[in-house]
Amino acid sequence: MKSNRKTFGIIIIGNEILSGKTLDTNSHLICTELNNVGMVCKEIVTIPDVEKIISEKVNFFRQKFDFVFTTGGIGPTHDDKTSKAISSAFNDSLILNKEAKKRLEKHYSDDVLTNARLKMAFVPSKARLIDNPVSIAPGFYIENVFVFPGVPKILEVMLKDVLKRFKKNQKKFIKKIITTTLSEGIIGEYLADVQEKYNDLEIGSYPYFKKNSFGVSLVITGESNKRIKEACELLITYLDKNKGNPRLF
Amino acid sequence: MKSNRKTFGIIIIGNEILSGKTLDTNSHLICTELNNVGMVCKEIVTIPDVEKIISEKVNFFRQKFDFVFTTGGIGPTHDDKTSKAISSAFNDSLILNKEAKKRLEKHYSDDVLTNARLKMAFVPSKARLIDNPVSIAPGFYIENVFVFPGVPKILEVMLKDVLKRFKKNQKKFIKKIITTTLSEGIIGEYLADVQEKYNDLEIGSYPYFKKNSFGVSLVITGESNKRIKEACELLITYLDKNKGNPRLF
Repeated sequence: MKSNRKTFGIIIIGNEILSGKTLDTNSHLICTELNNVGMVCKEIVTIPDVEKIISEKVNFFRQKFDFVFTTGGIGPTHDDKTSKAISSAFNDSLILNKEAKKRLEKHYSDDVLTNARLKMAFVPSKARLIDNPVSIAPGFYIENVFVFPGVPKILEVMLKDVLKRFKKNQKKFIKKIITTTLSEGIIGEYLADVQEKYNDLEIGSYPYFKKNSFGVSLVITGESNKRIKEACELLITYLDKNKGNPRLF
Repeated sequence: MKSNRKTFGIIIIGNEILSGKTLDTNSHLICTELNNVGMVCKEIVTIPDVEKIISEKVNFFRQKFDFVFTTGGIGPTHDDKTSKAISSAFNDSLILNKEAKKRLEKHYSDDVLTNARLKMAFVPSKARLIDNPVSIAPGFYIENVFVFPGVPKILEVMLKDVLKRFKKNQKKFIKKIITTTLSEGIIGEYLADVQEKYNDLEIGSYPYFKKNSFGVSLVITGESNKRIKEACELLITYLDKNKGNPRLF
């Protein structure tokens, strides 16, 4: 399926993912939300907290995709290296952002604004802040790169706000799902024929296993209602004829 | 933390991850299991079901890391392109593996061994099979690249078997965890000092949020019991002195 849709890549930063300590769910959230507004994720990568590796990956991704989203590594501790790395990637330097500092001062007015906390107000000089209503320390964006924290609950809220800017100009995907009780091995050849005939659509085939049943979900995605309708009709007719109990969603 | 430990990369293959349809848990399982036997994951990447992209990524990873693990794309349908892509990456060709065919014939003896199903018996000529006791269609490995299916329950069983070969020669990581009720912003500077002094260790700092409490988990990883013990003592003394209620695990 070819299209002129906006593409993006995701860079998940953190040793805790690579060591198996933590299951990354951030990339799934970002993919879901941006797919809903019609954007296409081309690649997700998880890399360690190493400045040079982060910096090189950001430079690679920002040239390759329309947008880049990073999560992780912008907290107050020594293993938070993302801001510095992104600054290097853009040949920029980290500066103390006055607005960020003001917000942190207010947030920690009954506590201590330690140097470690103040570190979170240093962002690349060309960056603009992304609001963080949960724990206040902001994210930021610079050109097409959006930099978020790694804590899922905080990301969730911050992403919602950033999403608004992407919603405007994107056309949503048209998507239909057909489930069947026949297995992939039975319907595989026919599916391939339909996919070949409808190469402007993407037909994904995903087996599912439930408590007392198994079967296949077919996900048909594309740009044209007419073409999707035609492909679905072909598939449903075929599945019906072969007692596959097709259901359209 | 530098070491001569064996490294690996993971390639997750599937449009369903990139579109947000499916949460990838396979990389987390592989990271956890191999970290437990002392191996280091350097990079996880998720890419679409596109032969050229898979092939290029496999070639990049297999030269960069000691081992590569892929999941997804070896099923019976048109969107399963991994075997072909891996074959191209090694300048090899897909052949009908007799042993794989025999197993599938037996498995489908009361059903139909369709062409779609038989597709799963085609592997690169230089590949060796990885047993699949669940759904029979095998995975395979070729040189340092291990190719698994994407269904988590099947991967889990197949990985267990492959793990045996890695367990022998690896020295396990030494790992200690210290939890504290102080926040990262308070302990950040001291942590950085300890990390600088103990640069043969890796000290990770991870905030946690529970129902009625929050705090930080410090994960101290390394090769030397003596050095880890020293670093833990420093941290615990500091946290104790600052009423951080440290607990060692």
